[in-house]
Amino acid sequence: MTIEYATRHRRASHIPPEPGKPYFVEKGEGDRAHLFGDLFTVYAGGEQTENTFNFFTCDGAKGDIIPAHLHPDTYEVFYITEGAVRLFVEDQEGGQHEKLLSPGDFGFVPKNCPHAYRIERHHSRIVGVAAGPGGTFERFFENLGTPTEEFGLPREPYVPAPHTFGTVPQEYDVRFMPDHVWRTGE
Amino acid sequence: MTIEYATRHRRASHIPPEPGKPYFVEKGEGDRAHLFGDLFTVYAGGEQTENTFNFFTCDGAKGDIIPAHLHPDTYEVFYITEGAVRLFVEDQEGGQHEKLLSPGDFGFVPKNCPHAYRIERHHSRIVGVAAGPGGTFERFFENLGTPTEEFGLPREPYVPAPHTFGTVPQEYDVRFMPDHVWRTGE
Repeated sequence: MTIEYATRHRRASHIPPEPGKPYFVEKGEGDRAHLFGDLFTVYAGGEQTENTFNFFTCDGAKGDIIPAHLHPDTYEVFYITEGAVRLFVEDQEGGQHEKLLSPGDFGFVPKNCPHAYRIERHHSRIVGVAAGPGGTFERFFENLGTPTEEFGLPREPYVPAPHTFGTVPQEYDVRFMPDHVWRTGE
Repeated sequence: MTIEYATRHRRASHIPPEPGKPYFVEKGEGDRAHLFGDLFTVYAGGEQTENTFNFFTCDGAKGDIIPAHLHPDTYEVFYITEGAVRLFVEDQEGGQHEKLLSPGDFGFVPKNCPHAYRIERHHSRIVGVAAGPGGTFERFFENLGTPTEEFGLPREPYVPAPHTFGTVPQEYDVRFMPDHVWRTGE
C-alpha cells in the first residue's frame, strides 16, 4: 500500500491527493525539497488533516545558524531523532534562550517568537510539526527552495532567487528578521 | 530553561501552563502516563497550540495487538523512531491494510478509519500527533490509564477499571470496536 499518486504538489507522491485515505510512507519517501543545505521531507500536509496539522522532517549537515525568523500565526515543534541541533528562541518578553537538543529532546516555539537553529552534527534530523489556527505551512520549503526527487542532501546548497524572498515567506506565515541578534552565551 | 511548572495536569511538568511561552523538554521528561504495558509521554498539548495539534510518544515492548478503535474527529500520525510496529488500518470502503513500520517509516490514519497496532520489537517508540478540527486528545492516555512520575514502562501492566471504558473514551474521541476483525494476511 505504498502506492504512488499524482498530486498537485508532485508528479509521483506517496501522499494520496484526496483526504480521508489511510497511507504509509517508508523512510525518506515523503515529498522532498532542497533549501540551502537541507533536505525537507513532507509526510502529511494540510490536505490530509482538514488544515489542522502537518508532519515533516529536516535533514541537515553540521553548519551555520539559519536566519532568525518568526511565524505570526504558527506554532512549531522541534523533535530531534538524530544528531544534535542547537535551538535559539526568544520569548515574548524579549528573553532569549538556547539549548543543544539531542535525539529524543523536544523544543516548542510558539507563534510570534523569533527563533533559529544550528545543526551541530552531521546527519542530524529534526522532526517538525508547524501549524496554527490559520493552517499549516509545510509547502514553504519547496516554494522558497525547490522540489527534488533525490533522497539525500543537496550536492550544492540551493540558494533561492532573491525575488522569492519578497513573496514566498509572507504566503507561508514566515517573517525573516535580518537584523535580529542572538545574545545568548556562545 | 527546563523549568518545572505546576499545571492542571501535573504537580511538576516541563510544559508551561500558560500558552505562548517557548520551552524545551529533555528526552523522556514530558508528562508521563502508563496504560496497559505502554508508557505515553506528552511533549505538547492543546493548551500550547490553540487546540491545533499535540505531540507525544508511546514506548512499548513486543506484545499483542491493541484493541481496534477509531476516532470520529481525529487524524493520527504514527512515526516510528525505534523498534518495529505493525500498523493495521481500514479505509472508508472497508479495505484493510497492514504494514510493518521500521524507524523513519510513517503511517497516517484519517478520522473514522478503524485501526490498531502491534509492537513487534522490544524498546519500540512511536511518535504521535493526534488532532482534528475538534481539538487534540493527548490526555486520553492518562485518563484511561494513570499518570506516573516513573521514566520506564510499567512494571505491571496498568489495566483500567472497567467503568472507565464507559466514559473516558467518548470524552477523548475514541471508540473501541470489540467485534472488529482484521482479515489482513497474517
